[in-house]
Amino acid sequence: MSAARMTVVDAMRRALVLAAERPVRGPNPRVGCVLLASGNEHDPRMVLAEGRNHGVGTPHAEAEALADAQARGVDVRGSTAVVTLEPCHHRGRTPPCSSALLDAGVSEVVYAVADPHAVAAGGGAWLADHGVRVTEGLLADEGTQVLGVWLDAVRAGRPFVTLKIATSLDGRVAAADGSSRWITGDQARMHAHEVRAQADAILVGTGTVRADDPSLTARGPEGRLADTQPLRVVVGHSPVPASARVRSADGGELVVVRSRDVREVLSVLQEREVRHVVVEGGPVVASAFLAAGAVDEVHAYVAPVLLGSGRSAVVDIGVRTIGEAVRLSTVGVRQLGEDMLVVARPVGPSREEEC
Amino acid sequence: MSAARMTVVDAMRRALVLAAERPVRGPNPRVGCVLLASGNEHDPRMVLAEGRNHGVGTPHAEAEALADAQARGVDVRGSTAVVTLEPCHHRGRTPPCSSALLDAGVSEVVYAVADPHAVAAGGGAWLADHGVRVTEGLLADEGTQVLGVWLDAVRAGRPFVTLKIATSLDGRVAAADGSSRWITGDQARMHAHEVRAQADAILVGTGTVRADDPSLTARGPEGRLADTQPLRVVVGHSPVPASARVRSADGGELVVVRSRDVREVLSVLQEREVRHVVVEGGPVVASAFLAAGAVDEVHAYVAPVLLGSGRSAVVDIGVRTIGEAVRLSTVGVRQLGEDMLVVARPVGPSREEEC
Repeated sequence: MSAARMTVVDAMRRALVLAAERPVRGPNPRVGCVLLASGNEHDPRMVLAEGRNHGVGTPHAEAEALADAQARGVDVRGSTAVVTLEPCHHRGRTPPCSSALLDAGVSEVVYAVADPHAVAAGGGAWLADHGVRVTEGLLADEGTQVLGVWLDAVRAGRPFVTLKIATSLDGRVAAADGSSRWITGDQARMHAHEVRAQADAILVGTGTVRADDPSLTARGPEGRLADTQPLRVVVGHSPVPASARVRSADGGELVVVRSRDVREVLSVLQEREVRHVVVEGGPVVASAFLAAGAVDEVHAYVAPVLLGSGRSAVVDIGVRTIGEAVRLSTVGVRQLGEDMLVVARPVGPSREEEC
Repeated sequence: MSAARMTVVDAMRRALVLAAERPVRGPNPRVGCVLLASGNEHDPRMVLAEGRNHGVGTPHAEAEALADAQARGVDVRGSTAVVTLEPCHHRGRTPPCSSALLDAGVSEVVYAVADPHAVAAGGGAWLADHGVRVTEGLLADEGTQVLGVWLDAVRAGRPFVTLKIATSLDGRVAAADGSSRWITGDQARMHAHEVRAQADAILVGTGTVRADDPSLTARGPEGRLADTQPLRVVVGHSPVPASARVRSADGGELVVVRSRDVREVLSVLQEREVRHVVVEGGPVVASAFLAAGAVDEVHAYVAPVLLGSGRSAVVDIGVRTIGEAVRLSTVGVRQLGEDMLVVARPVGPSREEEC
């Protein structure tokens, strides 16, 4: 550890960088922590230790920073812990950070975002009750951004749902005879694999398994498998054939949910601690998620191709007249080779109402 | 006229600017001309006169430049005429520029693009036969760009066809009950009006007239009518109601073509000297143009809206399997408010084969 000096704000920026070094995936949030020596509020102070969370079952960021200091014989009594997320206050797979910080003699805790997890929240209040000076909300927007879909998912109590559709310019996902390989081009497909690699689960219906026999793996350039593979979730009542590619050894675990009920499906995934699921179709499943108001983000890959017939990306979602249309707000538009990607989110508050 | 001095290349750049001052519309091309005093090939020379074409029935660019010189008593004998398009060689609404240049004593002609118009071409060769030094192809790419769709249309012997579609993310142009106002937002509609204002004609089918009763006018901000209005073309066998908005006084002339045959329709427009027609639907007409291979450019406005049912932008175009898809090449993608615009052109040579 260098003998760098930082203000509290700079330390939070550093903690955010530490947090963001890990991909946004997995049941646990990305968190960073910097321990600063005691000193005046706005003066630069010595950095005593750093830590970040490495994923499920590993020490939390605060614990890693405390362990780092201890290993190097650094005294952290009277120090300030600068953390991107409120220190947890429950014994899960690891001990609570709140008591660890208190026990170590930390006298001040500054964090960006309050922990929305009902089980883990309350660390800030508990520390304050025990005489620690606690400040919440420093660089809260940046903290929220680093937490990403994890925060949405934990707040809503269900996985964040990205609906992916890949269509022709006239909204078709397949030609009249059912053929669909390939409507979009290499760059769009590569982008979709990057999205898969950052998600916890990919979900399709049994109809898509029978029609397209997808592998549902996350692959990088040249078809190489990504290091971590999302769960492969198949929903619906039809059986998944023994020879289906979703059973192949090279992808994530296969989870079959014998239901078309969106709440039930999400509940199963929630129990599996899935924070982010990418729904990849087909049209019946996509429409069920849309009709249930359970889509948080749409990734629409649109290819400059016209088909004139064949299945549409979305079928009945209960819209009869234009005023009832599901309206989204465009977050961004990108050209990917010949194709374009539209990222859009439903307009208005919907997550809290649904599940 | 200032006593500026220019090289031949600079004079061509100036001529291109003069040409581009007029909008791309109307039966005649945009042309600019600069007359340079005699001198060495690469040296700057005195600019003697300038001219440009102002539209149908007005003097051509060369004629305007010659008249300008004459009016100011400037001697153009031995001069170089720098023109963006090959001087015309026929007596149409105005006398041929080839003989006008020769008669004036111009000794050199440099032009960017050869005239593709069978009737008017041959000016360069004729001038060379009469002892004028002729150079073709200077800044030809820029010249081609300034001529725009006029060049495509004249080369193909039929109007350049832009197909406009405005759809939801799932490719629908209307909800289940037929309602379609509005799928796209203000900015997309304003852009579509700008495209109309630059076209010679807007075309819809009788079905669209009955279903949507469009005005087919070109309007600017705050709904103000554009100065020039494109022809309003309605195709199909059903009658156009007496009360239809396409009959309103505030738009362009109404042309009813009682045919669904695309070649026949284009032939009628060609006789009217239409160089650029925007086909605005509905799905049956759009599909007929696509199936006939008679679409040169697609403008697809895509709104972040999902409908799940309702008419698709394109219906049967004879594609049964993905390999037969009409594939386009994306020229550009733009975000317009919440919507996006994809401009795409058919892949490969198709124009010459068709009509």
